[in-house]
Amino acid sequence: MTTQSHKNTVPHMKWWGWGVEGVAFNHRDKPNFRPFVLDQVGVDVDVPGTPPPAFEEIDVPAPRIGEELLAELAEAVGEENVYTEDFDRVVHTYGKGLPDLIKVRAGHLPRAVDVVVYPGNESDVQAVLDAVVAADAVLIPFGGGSNISGSLTPPESEERPVVSLDLGRMNRVLEIDETAGLARIQAGVLGPDMEEQLTARGWTMGHQPDSFRHSTLGGWIATRSSGMQSDKYGDIADITRGLRAVQPGRMLVLRPLPSTSTGPSVREMILGSEGRLGVITEAWVQVHRLPENREIIAYLYPSWAAALAAMQEISTSDASPSVTRVSDDRETAFSFSTQKAKKGLKSTVQKGLFDLLERRGWDMDAVCLSYVGYEGGSARVKAEKAIVGKIVRRHGGIKLGSGPGELYDQKKFDTPYIRDYLLDIGAVADVSETATPWSNLLDIYNGTVRAAKDAYAALGVRGYIMCHLSHSYHSGACLYFTFAFPPATEKWEEQIEQYWKVKSAIQQSFVDLKGTISHHHGVGTEHAHWIEEDISEAGVETMVALLRGVDPSRNLNPGKVIPTHREW
Amino acid sequence: MTTQSHKNTVPHMKWWGWGVEGVAFNHRDKPNFRPFVLDQVGVDVDVPGTPPPAFEEIDVPAPRIGEELLAELAEAVGEENVYTEDFDRVVHTYGKGLPDLIKVRAGHLPRAVDVVVYPGNESDVQAVLDAVVAADAVLIPFGGGSNISGSLTPPESEERPVVSLDLGRMNRVLEIDETAGLARIQAGVLGPDMEEQLTARGWTMGHQPDSFRHSTLGGWIATRSSGMQSDKYGDIADITRGLRAVQPGRMLVLRPLPSTSTGPSVREMILGSEGRLGVITEAWVQVHRLPENREIIAYLYPSWAAALAAMQEISTSDASPSVTRVSDDRETAFSFSTQKAKKGLKSTVQKGLFDLLERRGWDMDAVCLSYVGYEGGSARVKAEKAIVGKIVRRHGGIKLGSGPGELYDQKKFDTPYIRDYLLDIGAVADVSETATPWSNLLDIYNGTVRAAKDAYAALGVRGYIMCHLSHSYHSGACLYFTFAFPPATEKWEEQIEQYWKVKSAIQQSFVDLKGTISHHHGVGTEHAHWIEEDISEAGVETMVALLRGVDPSRNLNPGKVIPTHREW
Repeated sequence: MTTQSHKNTVPHMKWWGWGVEGVAFNHRDKPNFRPFVLDQVGVDVDVPGTPPPAFEEIDVPAPRIGEELLAELAEAVGEENVYTEDFDRVVHTYGKGLPDLIKVRAGHLPRAVDVVVYPGNESDVQAVLDAVVAADAVLIPFGGGSNISGSLTPPESEERPVVSLDLGRMNRVLEIDETAGLARIQAGVLGPDMEEQLTARGWTMGHQPDSFRHSTLGGWIATRSSGMQSDKYGDIADITRGLRAVQPGRMLVLRPLPSTSTGPSVREMILGSEGRLGVITEAWVQVHRLPENREIIAYLYPSWAAALAAMQEISTSDASPSVTRVSDDRETAFSFSTQKAKKGLKSTVQKGLFDLLERRGWDMDAVCLSYVGYEGGSARVKAEKAIVGKIVRRHGGIKLGSGPGELYDQKKFDTPYIRDYLLDIGAVADVSETATPWSNLLDIYNGTVRAAKDAYAALGVRGYIMCHLSHSYHSGACLYFTFAFPPATEKWEEQIEQYWKVKSAIQQSFVDLKGTISHHHGVGTEHAHWIEEDISEAGVETMVALLRGVDPSRNLNPGKVIPTHREW
Repeated sequence: MTTQSHKNTVPHMKWWGWGVEGVAFNHRDKPNFRPFVLDQVGVDVDVPGTPPPAFEEIDVPAPRIGEELLAELAEAVGEENVYTEDFDRVVHTYGKGLPDLIKVRAGHLPRAVDVVVYPGNESDVQAVLDAVVAADAVLIPFGGGSNISGSLTPPESEERPVVSLDLGRMNRVLEIDETAGLARIQAGVLGPDMEEQLTARGWTMGHQPDSFRHSTLGGWIATRSSGMQSDKYGDIADITRGLRAVQPGRMLVLRPLPSTSTGPSVREMILGSEGRLGVITEAWVQVHRLPENREIIAYLYPSWAAALAAMQEISTSDASPSVTRVSDDRETAFSFSTQKAKKGLKSTVQKGLFDLLERRGWDMDAVCLSYVGYEGGSARVKAEKAIVGKIVRRHGGIKLGSGPGELYDQKKFDTPYIRDYLLDIGAVADVSETATPWSNLLDIYNGTVRAAKDAYAALGVRGYIMCHLSHSYHSGACLYFTFAFPPATEKWEEQIEQYWKVKSAIQQSFVDLKGTISHHHGVGTEHAHWIEEDISEAGVETMVALLRGVDPSRNLNPGKVIPTHREW
């Protein structure tokens, strides 16, 4: 089989990249993009690149799984929901991190999953999990497949059969408690499908990660996701009030509660557990009435330091916006480079404004673009805009208005497509995010940019690193870095090595400079190396105690979260 | 020794009851109190009661601890910080739950702690903990001693030496990060001492549990405390951004982070761990600038159903008050009964208002008193008061103004004193709190009141139960019940049995009717019986996996959180 089996209707992303077949980033209508990329990383995007191979070119190893376990899985979920075809196995072997994309394009499959099963309900999941544990096999839960931390891939050394459990058939909003603002939702639902079911009844969960279109509720919970509107709606850890998870031989049931003091929080153990404590089957999540008003306003700051100071002041002000985002000068320049050609008035207005700011003494290479979102009744929105406006002005910024904000809102889920486009033309790109106290934000930013640049220099490549502040909290914020460079080699193994040099420099900078190794992308295998430096060795030992107690034979997504040198 | 040894200056509450020696509840200046109590539970508060015994009357068993361990403890913290005197051991054997008070007054000490040690710093704590584990003894951390869930008392069957570790010397605010709004504070600091150190520099943590004056930061974290202002400042789980805890042979260090996605949350494992995962030595907590304005406004509703509906509407409105509290009719009547005699104008105004409401058709026996707190800039406070005011009126309520609010604010920490007063006159009283979704609030309220009344009837006693909504969340609220009755026996063992019948009926009602067994008082031994019904058997097994992995020989406060039939 070279294409997906269509025994069921669960949609998947491209086997070799992000998103839907036929949708891709395109620079043809963006006149500033080619000169920008040429200038910054020395790549000419007009030179034809190398598209991904056809699936037929990929050599997929045969499944290593016995008939007996296969029969038990078929018994558990129905034969029509068990897939051993190459295509399905490859789709379920990798997430969408940069190393995943390089490896899958190279047909590198040292340990593909052996079988993919699609349970239809909780008893199916329990039957699968129990069969896997009884057979001493391995189970890896799979949601939308958008993970970029290595959480979906079996360890290369894994000799036991590996079962990928795709939750895609469990995709319904089961119940809405309209008085409490709570919805009971199956874990396998994708973002758009879920929001469609909710908004049909006048509700929203408000959770909007970059991956929204291709990630699931269960995946968000299993990795501690955040979304663009988390300043208002909360991170997924706040949104998730109750859940159900299948553990070996038993069902974990946490009823929906606004708050509770019943010992160490089991809810907060399942959050972020990446399949290592069982399979999340459904959750009770907070939902909200669709807001009366919703506006995203763009602002421009003369410098990154001014922008960060303003963001911090907003976080302690009487305003509580739904979105607080600001890009550094490099990300701002990148954003401008991806603008479509402006014609007539629009072009004149923008040029006019920029000229004016320059005459006022702004360094237009240092400007930082910000988006702030407002939701609520008109009085509240008006009051908050006034508070924020005053803070923006106090820090030398200006308001650009709602036009760019609307554009941002329309395009906000498109960014991940650019990575595949860059890979085609021979450049690698990925992201790393951290969170740290406000007092430390500029330090960690400067240190991380320097670390990436040093790594580029050591590799002898021309690289780019840009950043935005994506979430504000009382005590600090999330910094979200994107980095890209054309590797100094055409061999895929060496490209991954070079990618790792840069990625490692960034992650090391995070822990060295008092940030966390991951704000909302989880740990997987990609960040596990630094987790001891983040939560201390004792923290990892505490976590191991928990994992080992629940899963003594390491049948549940082994090798994730815990560093390899800890051997758990 | 009959009084506390004064080798150090750590203050403690009365050995037999709440608070400071010399401070007590008094009904003499409250003319309505005697008739109210007589009418409701048939007790005449003017009949002289039985005060607690003198400490000399108590028979304290000798410590069961070897010289070797004592020497090691002295080595660890200094000889002057090791106490084996009877008085200190009794003070550290019980918290302040109703059974604690009855037992200690009765001199019932089947298993007193054997020694009390006062570490001065983290290395002292590490040395103590390691010595305890090496000797296979038991360590129980002790903060302010205000726990009402049995978390401080050794199991009666414990045969190993029991060491109470009093954190009271570790009471300093070590550092304030003024940019991030974070403070690093030692775990043993009492509420008022901590706030004094913070406010001296213009900051507040804003955490105000009823026990505030006699409880510590470490205790709040170890039990997942909430405070009266948690609607604004967050529960302690939100406030605590980083922490340090001593575990056997190692130091757990969680750096202060606004948010993180590093696997199952170790921070949320230590929160609520009640000493079972180690000893919390310090925490990084969120602090706030003292608010520009702070007001507490009293409102009155014609009925409990109207009050709850209004509170729910406030929780989804554009207002976000710092305090949302409303008492049911019985708690409102109780409040009025504790008013001091009003003279002249005040009395006339109140009577005038009540007469007016009666003429408007209000049933004055059904009215419910509410307090809502506002903090922030004057524009925000004004806007929020307007929003809340409108909601109150829509539900038939009226504004009483800031006078009663100020009074509430002054008296808010005094309530616990009343239990000792009642015990003196032969009545038992205690509290139970739950949290549940808004949709379920009236059901759980009605069911719990009925359950308590049924229990009173079965015992043949005249009991009282009253309630207030103490915290609002997006999806639900906390209901805080207080119950009191004169037991139908003078034998203390039977009094505890009768107390347990009522307490059990209430707790069972919580889990049966979709509430949690504890919103902010922790589990200890008093709530452990119901934890499986709250978080499911699998939830308890998951927790046991964690505890057993960290503390395989059960040296750390054994028997707490986990139900006895689970034997862990």
